[in-house]
Amino acid sequence: MTVDRKAKKVAVLGAGLVGGPMAADLAADRRFRVTAIDARADALARTAARNPRIATLQRDLADPLAVTELAAGFDLVLNAVPGHLGYRTLEAILRAGRSVVDIAFFPEDPFALHDLAVERGATAIVDCGVAPGMSNLLVGHAVRRLDETETVLIYVGGLPVERAWPFEYKAVFSPADVIEEYTRPARYVEHGRLVVRPALSDPELLDFPGVGTLEAFNTDGLRTLASTIDAPNKKEKTLRYPGHAERMAMLRAAGFFATEEIEVGGRRVRPRDVTSRLLFAAWRLGEEEADLTVMRVLVEGRKDGRRARLEYDLLDRRDEVSGVHSMARTTGYAATMALRLLAEERFAAPGIVPPERIGREPACVEFLLAGLRERGVIYAERIETLDG
Amino acid sequence: MTVDRKAKKVAVLGAGLVGGPMAADLAADRRFRVTAIDARADALARTAARNPRIATLQRDLADPLAVTELAAGFDLVLNAVPGHLGYRTLEAILRAGRSVVDIAFFPEDPFALHDLAVERGATAIVDCGVAPGMSNLLVGHAVRRLDETETVLIYVGGLPVERAWPFEYKAVFSPADVIEEYTRPARYVEHGRLVVRPALSDPELLDFPGVGTLEAFNTDGLRTLASTIDAPNKKEKTLRYPGHAERMAMLRAAGFFATEEIEVGGRRVRPRDVTSRLLFAAWRLGEEEADLTVMRVLVEGRKDGRRARLEYDLLDRRDEVSGVHSMARTTGYAATMALRLLAEERFAAPGIVPPERIGREPACVEFLLAGLRERGVIYAERIETLDG
Repeated sequence: MTVDRKAKKVAVLGAGLVGGPMAADLAADRRFRVTAIDARADALARTAARNPRIATLQRDLADPLAVTELAAGFDLVLNAVPGHLGYRTLEAILRAGRSVVDIAFFPEDPFALHDLAVERGATAIVDCGVAPGMSNLLVGHAVRRLDETETVLIYVGGLPVERAWPFEYKAVFSPADVIEEYTRPARYVEHGRLVVRPALSDPELLDFPGVGTLEAFNTDGLRTLASTIDAPNKKEKTLRYPGHAERMAMLRAAGFFATEEIEVGGRRVRPRDVTSRLLFAAWRLGEEEADLTVMRVLVEGRKDGRRARLEYDLLDRRDEVSGVHSMARTTGYAATMALRLLAEERFAAPGIVPPERIGREPACVEFLLAGLRERGVIYAERIETLDG
Repeated sequence: MTVDRKAKKVAVLGAGLVGGPMAADLAADRRFRVTAIDARADALARTAARNPRIATLQRDLADPLAVTELAAGFDLVLNAVPGHLGYRTLEAILRAGRSVVDIAFFPEDPFALHDLAVERGATAIVDCGVAPGMSNLLVGHAVRRLDETETVLIYVGGLPVERAWPFEYKAVFSPADVIEEYTRPARYVEHGRLVVRPALSDPELLDFPGVGTLEAFNTDGLRTLASTIDAPNKKEKTLRYPGHAERMAMLRAAGFFATEEIEVGGRRVRPRDVTSRLLFAAWRLGEEEADLTVMRVLVEGRKDGRRARLEYDLLDRRDEVSGVHSMARTTGYAATMALRLLAEERFAAPGIVPPERIGREPACVEFLLAGLRERGVIYAERIETLDG
């Protein structure tokens, strides 16, 4: 095998259902030498099987010092570890002075690492999946095109194609992460004021061509957009097949999502742990199972004295040839295209960079959208200008 | 206090939410000297507070030898212990040769105790609540009035008056007993053949004047009627507010009713135990909370060459003056009236006697219905005769 000596060495941390396809996407590009790193031998084996150009390294990524040492041996890093490890792994990568694209979606505030990144001259594009990720980028892009932004509204969901009673839901994530989404209060901005609504509240039915009617409900998904975008109305809602939210609200109301231990037959257990365990089987998206990703990003405001409305629509499905799930395609290819931005130095400002910041650079947006389009992930843009 | 020396001594085993009102009903009758027996001091105190004529005795009823000894000191016994203790408690009472009315609703076959009862010269009226109980009695009564019975159909439910999302259900029973009803396959007779259907299946909407639309679904409730009544079609269905069954089916499908242990955080637990524990609070019918009991018993067949249809309807509500729940009224007063049948020797055949057997004696039926009517529990009879 010929190896391009000038090829950039890329470490993909986490070889899961998104990490694997990301490694494969980068390995198909001669400009990269890709190493997938994970503690799980089976995950590494599955990733290696995707492309013989993928090297693998079995390492426990829970130790930050080891991650810093490891990262120093690469030119660029893709951070796809589980959320609970995400923040300290990102910090460890930045300590090594390496630029990184992050899709760990950790709960901590990424901007707390901004000074470290600047000091080490590293760029960290964070939250760079589909949503958060492309949603932020498109909002940033739309806001830049308006004189004034009034409303930012994001609807997004990953769904199985086959709707199976009673949940009509499957995911590549662990049920614990999904339950967290269904319990954490949703923070929005309405008329310039921060409002907090219960997760799963305000259900509304919306039609999505090619999918049918879906239900949108409140979840806490604004993340960096809450602080980076100046608009009096900002909201993100999750999409599911109708009825799902009510079932989840029922489980929550009955205490099945509770995190306080209860005593059952002399043993103390957390109801949420039991529920996660039971739903694991019911919610598991099988390797061969088709999924889809649907997203609608709406930005409304004023341009040249007129009301304007920008809409971006995504409907993506599992690639039946490669077997890559839509959730991995839409999340992973956004991250690998962002990594190419860094590799080609199309974007090089050091610090913590949320995707909405990239969205302010039209050339970068065009580069990402074109790369995604090549991979079949197509964002349809619609611009309406209204009088008044 | 003057005591009628000829008064019959009655033991009420179990001083719970049905046992207490039964003791009070009997104590209001000078012909009885009532002793409420239970292991729980607080339950006994609440029962004693209902009427100063109620004596109490704190005893653990789990020991059959002690129960036999205890029963021997009384003329008649009312067995209202929890279902899992019911069968061996009934056996212990019969060993003492005492006649008994049983509302323990135990899962074992009561007829296995028939020879013992006959041998000891004791009568045991079993399953003598509202359903099983009055439903059986009315079926027995109707069947006797027809030349030929084609169909027996029973709809019954105990419900809270206030419908609270998400379950719209409350009960005086433990959630574990209700979940058992929602999981045990329902055995029916259709066209003369035994059929087995999943619990919660075949939902149908029915209107009940004064209540509104309810949903009826399959549960395993025929009990003795499965063998004692000769009819090609026999079915019992449970009534709840619409939507309840689907929610329960959802919990069942997701594994929340499973009895096999699963491992959660290093501890082994039975999901059903966790669910029972969580639903205990959600389903608990408060002391001050109004409930209702609704029942419809339909018996169809032929009489004098014509098609005939007998219908008995019950709609009972909590007594707001005494605070006695409808569930206790409809169950408990059926049992206390049956005990009066025995006390007055209106029915004296020794052996295991299901209520449908009592239903074959018109004088006994009239006696029970009149006693219930006095207590405000009113069964409305409707007879239709059709051509053909």
